[in-house]
Amino acid sequence: MSERIYNLSAGPAVLPEEVIRKTQEAIWNLNGSGIGVMEHSHRDKPFMAVIEKAEALCRELAGIPADHHVMFVQGGASTQFFMVPMNLLGPDATADYLMTGAWSQKAVAEAKRFGKVHVVASSEDENFSYIPSPDTFKWSAKPVYAHFTSNNTIFGTQWSTDPVPPDGVPLICDASSDIFSRPIDVEKYGLIYAGAQKNLGPSGVTLVIMRKDLVERASSSLPTMLQYRTHAKEKSLYNTPPTFAIYVLAEVLDWIKQNGGLAAMEERNRAKAGVIYDYLDRSSLFRATARAGSRSNMNITFRARTPELDDKFIAESKKRGFSGLKGHRSVGGMRASVYNAFPRAGCEALATFMAEFEKANG
Amino acid sequence: MSERIYNLSAGPAVLPEEVIRKTQEAIWNLNGSGIGVMEHSHRDKPFMAVIEKAEALCRELAGIPADHHVMFVQGGASTQFFMVPMNLLGPDATADYLMTGAWSQKAVAEAKRFGKVHVVASSEDENFSYIPSPDTFKWSAKPVYAHFTSNNTIFGTQWSTDPVPPDGVPLICDASSDIFSRPIDVEKYGLIYAGAQKNLGPSGVTLVIMRKDLVERASSSLPTMLQYRTHAKEKSLYNTPPTFAIYVLAEVLDWIKQNGGLAAMEERNRAKAGVIYDYLDRSSLFRATARAGSRSNMNITFRARTPELDDKFIAESKKRGFSGLKGHRSVGGMRASVYNAFPRAGCEALATFMAEFEKANG
Repeated sequence: MSERIYNLSAGPAVLPEEVIRKTQEAIWNLNGSGIGVMEHSHRDKPFMAVIEKAEALCRELAGIPADHHVMFVQGGASTQFFMVPMNLLGPDATADYLMTGAWSQKAVAEAKRFGKVHVVASSEDENFSYIPSPDTFKWSAKPVYAHFTSNNTIFGTQWSTDPVPPDGVPLICDASSDIFSRPIDVEKYGLIYAGAQKNLGPSGVTLVIMRKDLVERASSSLPTMLQYRTHAKEKSLYNTPPTFAIYVLAEVLDWIKQNGGLAAMEERNRAKAGVIYDYLDRSSLFRATARAGSRSNMNITFRARTPELDDKFIAESKKRGFSGLKGHRSVGGMRASVYNAFPRAGCEALATFMAEFEKANG
Repeated sequence: MSERIYNLSAGPAVLPEEVIRKTQEAIWNLNGSGIGVMEHSHRDKPFMAVIEKAEALCRELAGIPADHHVMFVQGGASTQFFMVPMNLLGPDATADYLMTGAWSQKAVAEAKRFGKVHVVASSEDENFSYIPSPDTFKWSAKPVYAHFTSNNTIFGTQWSTDPVPPDGVPLICDASSDIFSRPIDVEKYGLIYAGAQKNLGPSGVTLVIMRKDLVERASSSLPTMLQYRTHAKEKSLYNTPPTFAIYVLAEVLDWIKQNGGLAAMEERNRAKAGVIYDYLDRSSLFRATARAGSRSNMNITFRARTPELDDKFIAESKKRGFSGLKGHRSVGGMRASVYNAFPRAGCEALATFMAEFEKANG
């Protein structure tokens, strides 16, 4: 097998090598069934064991209470952006959104198709480089839910403490880019959704954790596939689910469990990101673009002194075996995405390379 | 590697072993990129080459003309059931549906949420065991489109000649269970959709082939992800597509090409199904349930003399290394799904086993 390089892609992103090795076997023959995991009917026992394992591990790792459903659906967060208001927001009702980046903006744009949107707080004034402080929040009078994006992949910011909506208002979180990277108190949420392709598996499956009473709020005149109740009632098997993606997700969850669970992930992720942030804070060539206190442990955004040096750094990084370091065009510079499966050794190697680059170009 | 068995599942279904072997390498390291195919950003060159290959092979194999888009979306045929009328059918307009099974019925149920539905013909009177004859068709006065299901997975029937709608009415086909199993004259269609999990790859990706003028008919007030124009304009990259599923689909298309293309598939599939149908027509214990002339070359539905013998046959088939032969509950008996990737040797082995069973139980 040829050598693998350090993959700092923002998503789809690096997966645990143990999971890939196991998947290589499973696509030929799943657990001795004589049939590969892509080829099993979603109704037969070997696949039923896979999807049950995926749900059980979600529940175990995140401590998901019995009054929340766990669903595996398709379409990514972009589909959740409209499914949430389609199911929960009526034309005369208001939903409150916390605006912390491009994905929050897209969620707001879709919500406006279904009802009124109130922006509680926004960090757009400084190109989303920070998480707004709770003392600036202005909630609407009677929101049907409050929505936020827990980690902002593009801008490299992350909520260190969840926003607290007014009493009785369900909190809804797009956790696509930091799901299961740290403990999560599911009891506090009405709905959590996450595309799998950063911390959970390949693209093509979305994890939805939803309080049971909210599932029932939607109109039954919506298309069957767009009602959360369909997927809740049928245990994600109303139609053929993305079976392979669910298999890999289950194996990634197993890997998280074998590696100590969510608390261990948080500690590991903080230390990994710390290696880079510590170097950035000491550097006179590079600087982090997200404000201290708002920094993400998943996506580390930074810049060199000039755009020319950014370009040179990115070009040289590729030769040194680092892939995916170019930042999003709306921020510029660099972005190192260091999700759960990215190894600490990769963070150390990157910091070492940055120091060498600084020495040569300082 | 352990031994694989004959997989007659209706879907997800058997894939070419060459494709699985190649996929085992690709998930570790895609074409020497140092990154596995599940882990590549959908915006980077190695994956762009994958999705471009998938589209190019679709166009080449099926002769798709330039005035049709090729899109790779999520959600399966169940999502297309509502996206088609959501995009094309207004509340005062009528769409014509040909009713040939459970999937046609589901498509109709979703269409009724958006406008009027007229049933052109139905074979429900005989439990969908045949394809209605064109001389029984009753089209509505001015349908905005005509929809049919080219192969009926559950009932084992297949259109041998496509229905011909009135002049100027776009023909829409759910081809999920026989796509690319035979040549297809795309020019005749307004829209063809197919979940991948029978003839094209793993579940989690849906192929949509759509005439360009139809793409523009939808209201732009629909959720962004539910407008075909979004996926057409962004070349299936508006959001993160199911990258792995698209990779496997491209490799399956390559396998079809290496094996002679769609005409060769049709010849091969007819011969494969013929092995089973010929035996069924000679048997005094078993009989095919679909009417001659309506029989599917993908899903062969049959029964033994009694339900008890059906059960006995299914139980014994498992011991002999045949998986997935139990028929759908709405038909009973047995179903052998012999999609493109199912080998002729498997059809011969099944016919041999049936003959042995008949000898022992006749």
